[in-house]
Amino acid sequence: MDTAYPQLTRYLEASDADGYLVDADGEDSDQYYLSGYHAPDDFVTLYADGTVSLLVSELEYTRAKDDSDADVVYKLSDFDYADRVDRLGPDRGRAETVAEFLADSGVESVAVPPAFPIGTGDALREFGIDVVTDRDSVVETTRAVKTETEIDHVAETQRANEAAMDAAAEMLERATIDGDTLYLDGEQLTSERVRRRIELTLLEHGCGMDDCIVASGASSARAHDSGYGPLDANVPITVDIFPRNKRTRYHADMTRTFVKGEPTERIREWYALTEEAYRAALDAIAPGVTGEAVHGAACEVYEEAGYPTLRTDESTEDGFFHSTGHGVGLDVHEAPSLSLGGGELAAGHVVTVEPGLYEQGTGGVRIEDLVVVTEDGYRNLTSYPTDFQIV
Amino acid sequence: MDTAYPQLTRYLEASDADGYLVDADGEDSDQYYLSGYHAPDDFVTLYADGTVSLLVSELEYTRAKDDSDADVVYKLSDFDYADRVDRLGPDRGRAETVAEFLADSGVESVAVPPAFPIGTGDALREFGIDVVTDRDSVVETTRAVKTETEIDHVAETQRANEAAMDAAAEMLERATIDGDTLYLDGEQLTSERVRRRIELTLLEHGCGMDDCIVASGASSARAHDSGYGPLDANVPITVDIFPRNKRTRYHADMTRTFVKGEPTERIREWYALTEEAYRAALDAIAPGVTGEAVHGAACEVYEEAGYPTLRTDESTEDGFFHSTGHGVGLDVHEAPSLSLGGGELAAGHVVTVEPGLYEQGTGGVRIEDLVVVTEDGYRNLTSYPTDFQIV
Repeated sequence: MDTAYPQLTRYLEASDADGYLVDADGEDSDQYYLSGYHAPDDFVTLYADGTVSLLVSELEYTRAKDDSDADVVYKLSDFDYADRVDRLGPDRGRAETVAEFLADSGVESVAVPPAFPIGTGDALREFGIDVVTDRDSVVETTRAVKTETEIDHVAETQRANEAAMDAAAEMLERATIDGDTLYLDGEQLTSERVRRRIELTLLEHGCGMDDCIVASGASSARAHDSGYGPLDANVPITVDIFPRNKRTRYHADMTRTFVKGEPTERIREWYALTEEAYRAALDAIAPGVTGEAVHGAACEVYEEAGYPTLRTDESTEDGFFHSTGHGVGLDVHEAPSLSLGGGELAAGHVVTVEPGLYEQGTGGVRIEDLVVVTEDGYRNLTSYPTDFQIV
Repeated sequence: MDTAYPQLTRYLEASDADGYLVDADGEDSDQYYLSGYHAPDDFVTLYADGTVSLLVSELEYTRAKDDSDADVVYKLSDFDYADRVDRLGPDRGRAETVAEFLADSGVESVAVPPAFPIGTGDALREFGIDVVTDRDSVVETTRAVKTETEIDHVAETQRANEAAMDAAAEMLERATIDGDTLYLDGEQLTSERVRRRIELTLLEHGCGMDDCIVASGASSARAHDSGYGPLDANVPITVDIFPRNKRTRYHADMTRTFVKGEPTERIREWYALTEEAYRAALDAIAPGVTGEAVHGAACEVYEEAGYPTLRTDESTEDGFFHSTGHGVGLDVHEAPSLSLGGGELAAGHVVTVEPGLYEQGTGGVRIEDLVVVTEDGYRNLTSYPTDFQIV
C-alpha cells in the first residue's frame, strides 16, 4: 500500500486543521488507503503530526495491531467507551470516545473527507472539536495517481476481465439462432447464464464481481441495466464487466458490444462512429490535458454526425448521454473524471475510455478500454479487439 | 420491498423536519429500502409529505423512472446542475442542486441518517437548509423488523449457506492427515481452497460473498481473520460464511467449528461451554427482552466457568471478547445488537446467536445460528447440526 501521508502533511500545513480523520469501514477506499487495514465494521483513522493512529473495537484490536499500516492502534476501551455508551447511548457515546481519542492526541481540529458521516461529525462538534470538510478530497486525489505496483494490480485484474470477456464471447459464438432467440446447449441463452459464466471465470482468476452488464436490445440503452432474461439475435448485446481482485482489491473495467446474427446498417454506423469517438478520446489523452477536453474530443465526433451529447443537451436520454470515462482503482468509480468539469490529467491516472451511442427503445453500442496516463500520452492496459464483435 | 414510510411519517411529525433525506449509492441499505432502487453511483432520496422523490444523474434517469419505487424521479439537469457546477465546482455545485430540489419540494429542513455525508450536509446548511442527524436511525430501526417475505429471503440465503458449509465439511472429511498438515487430492489443503469451494457453491445457489472465514489454529482467535495458507490438523478450524443473495440482496450468516483429527480435552471443554452459552442465549430470546439480557445469558455461562467476557473486562482479548449477535438483512451487520447496551427485541427481528471462546496464540471455537424473533420466542432459520464437527 502506498500512502497519502506526504500529501496529507502538505494539506494540513495549508489548512488550519491539526489532523485528518476518517470514520468508515474497511470497504471505504480512503480508509483502506490510509490505514492499510480492511475490516467489516467501522473504525477510525487519524493522521496527525506525521503519525497514523487507529481507533478500533476490542474485536478488531488483535488483528489491527498486526496487520494494519498504522503507527499506533488504540481500542475503544482505552477511552472509557463502555461508560460513555452507558451515559450517552451507543451513537453519541462512541462520538465522545472519538473526541477523547483526539484530545489525547492533542488534536482540536480535523479535516474530513466529504463522505465522512455527519452523525460523528456533528457530535464531535458538540464535544468541542472543529470539523471541516476537505472539499478537495485529498486522499481520493492522491489515490488517483497510481504507482507502478498499483498499475500492475489494475492490469492483472484486466487480464481476468479479458478471460471473462472471452468466455462470454465463446458462449455467443457457439449459440444458435431460432427466430429472434438465441439457444445454447439446448436451452435459451439468457443474460443470467452468460453472467454466471463470467463470474465463474473471474473467480478462477482470483477476482470477484458484485454484478455485470449483459444486456441486449432496448435494455442496452438503459445505463447500468444489468440485463435479464433471453438475449436477442441481430441486436446489440452490451457486455460490461468491472471486477475486483480479491487479493489486491484493485478493480478493472471493460465493455464490448456483440451482435449474434446480423446488425442493421444503422447499428453498424453507430459502432463505426463510436470507434471513431474512442480513437479521438484516446488521442487526446496526455498529462496536463483536462478530462473535459478528452470528453470533448469524443463528443465532437458524435455531434458532427448530428447526435446529441451532454454538451449539446444536458438532459438528453439518447445519443451519447454519459461521460467518456472515470478513474479506476480501489474503487471502480473514482477520480479523475473524463466529463464536463473534469480537471487536468496526470501521469499515473488510470481511466476508462468508454464512449457509446444509444437510443431509448432501440439499444446502444459502447466500447470501453482501461488506460494509464503516461508522461507522453497513455498506455492501454486492455488487450482485447475493439472491432464490432459480430459472431 | 416493504417500506419505512409510516414510521418516517410519525418520525417527521414528532421532529421539526419537513423531510427525510438520504444521499448515497444503492449499496446503502437505507437508500435501497426507501427508494427500491439500486445504482452504483450516488443519488438522493427524499421522503416528504407522504411522497418519495429521487434526484438522479441523467445516466440513471431512464432506469430509475421504470425500476424504482419512487413517486417522482427528477434528474440533476431539472435544477440547472451544469450551471451550478460551472460556478461552484462539482462538490458544492451538486449540493446547491440538491438544495434547489428541496426548495422546489417545499422542504426547508431535513432529518438525515447518521451516515449521511458531511460534505453534502454542511453545504446544504450553507444554502439555508436546516440539517439534523436522526440519532434513532429510524430507517435502520424499521428495516430491523422483517416481514414474512423478508424472513423468507434471509432463510433462502441461509439454505445456500448450509450447502456451502456442507461443501467445506466434505473437503475436511475427505482430507488426510500427515503430521500436522491436511492433504486433499494430493495437495495441501489451504484456507484458500476451501474458501473457493464455498464461493462456487454459493454461486450455484444464486448467492455471492465478498469474503468468508476459514481459519485454523491461532488465526481462529483473531476475529475477522479470513485465514490464509495450509490448514492444521487437531486444532479448531472456524468456518464463518455470510453470503448475500444476488437477486433479493438479503444476507445470511452461520459459523461452525471443525477439527480434523483429535481436539485436545481443553478445546472439547471450550466447545461444550460454547454450546451451553449458545443454548442459554437462545432460551433468553423473546420479544421485549433486551439484546443486553440475551448477551448476558451467554456471558454468564462463560463467567461461571472462570473465563473473561466483555462484561467482566471490556478490554479482554481472550475468553468471550465479542457480542452475542447482530441483526442480519440487507446489511450483514445491522440492528438490533445482542450486546452491552442492546435494546429490546421485537417479533420480526432477525439476529445471529454466536457465542465463542478464544485464547490468543491458541485459537477459538464458535457456533453461530440465525434466528427470527417470534411472538413467543424465536424460530431458528438454520438447519445444520450444532455439535462439534470432529471429522
